Amino acid sequence: MKNMMRTALIALLAMPLGCLAQQRDGHTPPAGTVANEHNLSGVQYPRVDAAGRTYWRFRAPDAQKVEISFRGEMTKEADGWWSYVSPGPEAVGFHYYQMIIDGVSVADPGGITYYGMGKWVSGIEIPEGLAYDKPQDVPHGVVREQPYWSEITQTWRRCFVYTPAEYDTRPNKKYPVLYLQHGSGEDETGWVRQGRTNYIMDNLIAEGKAVPMLVVMDLGYATDARPGSEQPAPGARNRGIFPEVLVKEIIPMIDKNYRTLTDRENRAMAGLSMGGGHTFQTVMPNLDKFAWMGGFSGGASGVDQIETAYNGIYTDAEALNRQLKLLFVSIGSEERPERVRDFADALKARGLRNVVYYESPGTAHEWLTWRRSLREFAPLLFKK
Amino acid sequence: MKNMMRTALIALLAMPLGCLAQQRDGHTPPAGTVANEHNLSGVQYPRVDAAGRTYWRFRAPDAQKVEISFRGEMTKEADGWWSYVSPGPEAVGFHYYQMIIDGVSVADPGGITYYGMGKWVSGIEIPEGLAYDKPQDVPHGVVREQPYWSEITQTWRRCFVYTPAEYDTRPNKKYPVLYLQHGSGEDETGWVRQGRTNYIMDNLIAEGKAVPMLVVMDLGYATDARPGSEQPAPGARNRGIFPEVLVKEIIPMIDKNYRTLTDRENRAMAGLSMGGGHTFQTVMPNLDKFAWMGGFSGGASGVDQIETAYNGIYTDAEALNRQLKLLFVSIGSEERPERVRDFADALKARGLRNVVYYESPGTAHEWLTWRRSLREFAPLLFKK
Repeated sequence: MKNMMRTALIALLAMPLGCLAQQRDGHTPPAGTVANEHNLSGVQYPRVDAAGRTYWRFRAPDAQKVEISFRGEMTKEADGWWSYVSPGPEAVGFHYYQMIIDGVSVADPGGITYYGMGKWVSGIEIPEGLAYDKPQDVPHGVVREQPYWSEITQTWRRCFVYTPAEYDTRPNKKYPVLYLQHGSGEDETGWVRQGRTNYIMDNLIAEGKAVPMLVVMDLGYATDARPGSEQPAPGARNRGIFPEVLVKEIIPMIDKNYRTLTDRENRAMAGLSMGGGHTFQTVMPNLDKFAWMGGFSGGASGVDQIETAYNGIYTDAEALNRQLKLLFVSIGSEERPERVRDFADALKARGLRNVVYYESPGTAHEWLTWRRSLREFAPLLFKK
Repeated sequence: MKNMMRTALIALLAMPLGCLAQQRDGHTPPAGTVANEHNLSGVQYPRVDAAGRTYWRFRAPDAQKVEISFRGEMTKEADGWWSYVSPGPEAVGFHYYQMIIDGVSVADPGGITYYGMGKWVSGIEIPEGLAYDKPQDVPHGVVREQPYWSEITQTWRRCFVYTPAEYDTRPNKKYPVLYLQHGSGEDETGWVRQGRTNYIMDNLIAEGKAVPMLVVMDLGYATDARPGSEQPAPGARNRGIFPEVLVKEIIPMIDKNYRTLTDRENRAMAGLSMGGGHTFQTVMPNLDKFAWMGGFSGGASGVDQIETAYNGIYTDAEALNRQLKLLFVSIGSEERPERVRDFADALKARGLRNVVYYESPGTAHEWLTWRRSLREFAPLLFKK
């Protein structure tokens, strides 16, 4: 109901804003297109049509050349505006982009910025039009920004912690925890801002599909700064140490500050791309601490590496069946899914009973693949 | 102690990164300068020296002209870099800026983005070098992102709620609430990101200077979308309705979802610039709901308007003395403080006993004025 009102309101608001754009410079957006949902309020471009084609218009009267990253050059119009229309539909989902103005890549000043590609960039969404990742009229959890001191990195770090709606009203109940990691070039803001974790979890919990749980989202980059530690090359970041930071510092900090269930059967980890790698690197050597895991577009080994990966852990199916209640892997159908699918099939053929494979239809290496992966993964956790 | 280690670490890290910059293009940053604290990790420019002079360097080989907003044109060097040094020291504090590349104003791709000036822009800080607004080795509260449905605006809105460190460990204790608002062109993220509210409150509470309280930070823009409501002009935002949203929707939502003390003597409101205006517009007609208020660089009436403002409320000093436990106004010494100072003096001369005036030395209309104002204001709240 609220969502219908919201949709109606958006339709209503689109009209006067369209008129406004027309009044200002005589331009009317093409019929059948809507403003990208990551634009600032009232900003008309980029736009998307129902087929997924994208429409761009950018004002830069004094520029020599304007490009859109991953797309191409814009065409200069007579009036100081530049335009571009995608040659065909773009893949459904959330795509990072930058404007390139005379060779300088920058965030689109007309949009919200997201941390991806190692900096604050823009996003355009080809919507799938579903509600599972949107705010609904259900009880809402909150996302908490939690600072903590890290001895290993000798820095103040922060994580974001989703607590379900009931957390504050049941002060004696303890909760299982999912540790959920971003990908390369992203940070601890990704899973809430791009990934909409809080709304996905609110909706799954309200429907009774997922059990109430905490979700902890931290920064997957860490540099060992303890006295005597080996330093990475200047400017480089030491990725290898994040699993140690998670196990030695983040988990104890969360268990101290939140009402958590602290046994292995109530702790899960998952991540996307690089974060999928982090998940396998963290969970496999620490099966006394985790019983559930997921790698979204990342973390799977090649079939030819299964014998040797993680000291041959996949060769003892019986042991893994006892230890892992879930080994979930997923990938988008448009990002060459074969490697991950083959990995899952090979594990199943070896007798691993708790392997689940999910393939996101029509999506690539981007956040819609991962929102859907979370939607499929979270309901499987902490059950039985 | 941790802060010392942090400072030492920053000094240590600055060296290899300096070398890296040198290796890459033969450039070494000027001695005695440090990278702006709002740059991305490893990004060398802009830089600041101890006197407050700023140093800029930006790569744009194909641009015809590069400018820095509020400053001026950069000089093109032979190697594709552009440079600029401020003619003198800049005022201490946090300043928004944009890069202007061939006439297009954008956020600096080398920095963190902040929502100000109505879009996501960059920030440069001339540091004052104090610790009150930095993370310290004290108990930390969290900042919660709280979504809620607003009937008045017919939208999902969100606010950020600071809860003090002890909030989760004392499930039977109820807390007073400060509603704290941003300025024009900013949003609900401002008081945490630019304003560092959580660290300021953590430190004040740990020192015993402020009582533990909740701080609620919401979006000061709202458009009445109820059926039959008067609509603002196309593209315009109806600012006038925010006090109604706060009183009718936000306060009840907070009192429902958090353990709050709900009487007027446990509710305060403050804001900066436009948010100072919102504070006076909200509190003065609702003195049954608030007993403490603050206007930081905003909200004060001209001395010639004191007789008539808010239906002559200032003319009955005896009534206001009973109702308002604190009327705090502040302003930076570099933003023409006379108007606010005269307002405070005039109120005092009329017999208002609970007026407090604070002038931030050496700062202008920017976030350092407001961080300091919060530091001075919060300790006065909810006492006696």
